[in-house]
Amino acid sequence: MIGIFDSGVGGLTVIKPLIKYFKSDIIYLGDTARVPYGNKSKETVIKYSIENTKFLLSKGVDFIIVACNTASSLAIDTLRSIFNVPIYGVVESTAKVACQFDSIAVIGTKATIESNAYEKTIKMFNQNASVQQKACPLFVPLIEEGLIDDEITKLVAKRYLNGIQAQALVLGCTHYPLIKHIIKEIVPNAQIIDSGTSIINTIDKNMLKGSGKIEFYATDSPENFSKIGKLFLGENFNGVKLVDLEEL
Amino acid sequence: MIGIFDSGVGGLTVIKPLIKYFKSDIIYLGDTARVPYGNKSKETVIKYSIENTKFLLSKGVDFIIVACNTASSLAIDTLRSIFNVPIYGVVESTAKVACQFDSIAVIGTKATIESNAYEKTIKMFNQNASVQQKACPLFVPLIEEGLIDDEITKLVAKRYLNGIQAQALVLGCTHYPLIKHIIKEIVPNAQIIDSGTSIINTIDKNMLKGSGKIEFYATDSPENFSKIGKLFLGENFNGVKLVDLEEL
Repeated sequence: MIGIFDSGVGGLTVIKPLIKYFKSDIIYLGDTARVPYGNKSKETVIKYSIENTKFLLSKGVDFIIVACNTASSLAIDTLRSIFNVPIYGVVESTAKVACQFDSIAVIGTKATIESNAYEKTIKMFNQNASVQQKACPLFVPLIEEGLIDDEITKLVAKRYLNGIQAQALVLGCTHYPLIKHIIKEIVPNAQIIDSGTSIINTIDKNMLKGSGKIEFYATDSPENFSKIGKLFLGENFNGVKLVDLEEL
Repeated sequence: MIGIFDSGVGGLTVIKPLIKYFKSDIIYLGDTARVPYGNKSKETVIKYSIENTKFLLSKGVDFIIVACNTASSLAIDTLRSIFNVPIYGVVESTAKVACQFDSIAVIGTKATIESNAYEKTIKMFNQNASVQQKACPLFVPLIEEGLIDDEITKLVAKRYLNGIQAQALVLGCTHYPLIKHIIKEIVPNAQIIDSGTSIINTIDKNMLKGSGKIEFYATDSPENFSKIGKLFLGENFNGVKLVDLEEL
């Protein structure tokens, strides 16, 4: 059983290929009561990540996937030092795919970019890579407002991405695949790498295989989680359960 | 001593006139670890508002001002039913100013607008008022990104505000005064009413007078709070203390 957490619904883009290719057994937690993580401090993101992990372990999961790029960037070392199960993060898995290229651009939340986690991780695998980074803090609210094919989002994207020159562009936030078509228009020559598909290259396939059992938990309204979540998962789902992490 | 809470820094626009005109003694709490409230559920906003109020009361304040429009809209009745001190909210005070007009538009977060709190409260004071409401969920992230004089914000504002016809326009979110100049351009004929200045019309002036002592608390990074907060307060300040509400 895989335990996966994200600050909200973005991590659903990470479980999409797990469901499709491996019928993985998944317990997913979206911390929607405290979303977003991307503009919060390292200390706060670590605190929330510890609580999320404790909850998933209390449900009997065998290992953890941190599906949130911000939490992967800021909290993964602390989580590994505390918990005695394998912990995988989207930053490492995405960096492993990206490091085949020599010139890489990374976009993400403010906290992810300021942590420098992508650059450090990519350079561990490819010392000679040049890494250009750019925080795109308005992408998450624009996507959550459903402006995924809108002139406002295009204008914002141009502001952020004009001037990016790289062989590969890492979407270092699980929301961004929803506006891949807009990003692609502005940076047409870069290979786009997203976290959702890269995580399956990092984990032993046998650990991913399952019978397709999925439980969803959210810290805020289950109804809202299903409503916005279907944009990310690409299909309808229900039965989301509410959880209060402070009561654990 | 006045206890004031907001989901983040927006409430600083509410204390600005209190400092200027009354030298009020204030304990201010910004729940920056869980910001924003504006797109969260009623249950979650109530839970957070109770925790915020408990914290302020533990500091010995005599009464509470809920400086967050979302919390005022969703939680004020519950707070009054639980706590035995006067509790003032920006929705009531702003509605009292707005009700002089017969045709009123209200803009705010999704949660504030969906709660219908402004319309209900305005109609308590002026049965005949026509109230038009519009959620503007992108204003808060745009303002927090500092795009307060930017073509992107103007484009978003036009999208939200085109078609508004009213004698008065209520800025039902404490962030919005920062883009008043943009709003004014699109709705030039409406009288703009903001929460910051209206709260001082609701509370007995003697309760507001003080010696100018202010303490700031934030649930996330004090440095970030000071940095973004100075935009809202209009001056530099320091000495913000970190508080963990879950530990209370």
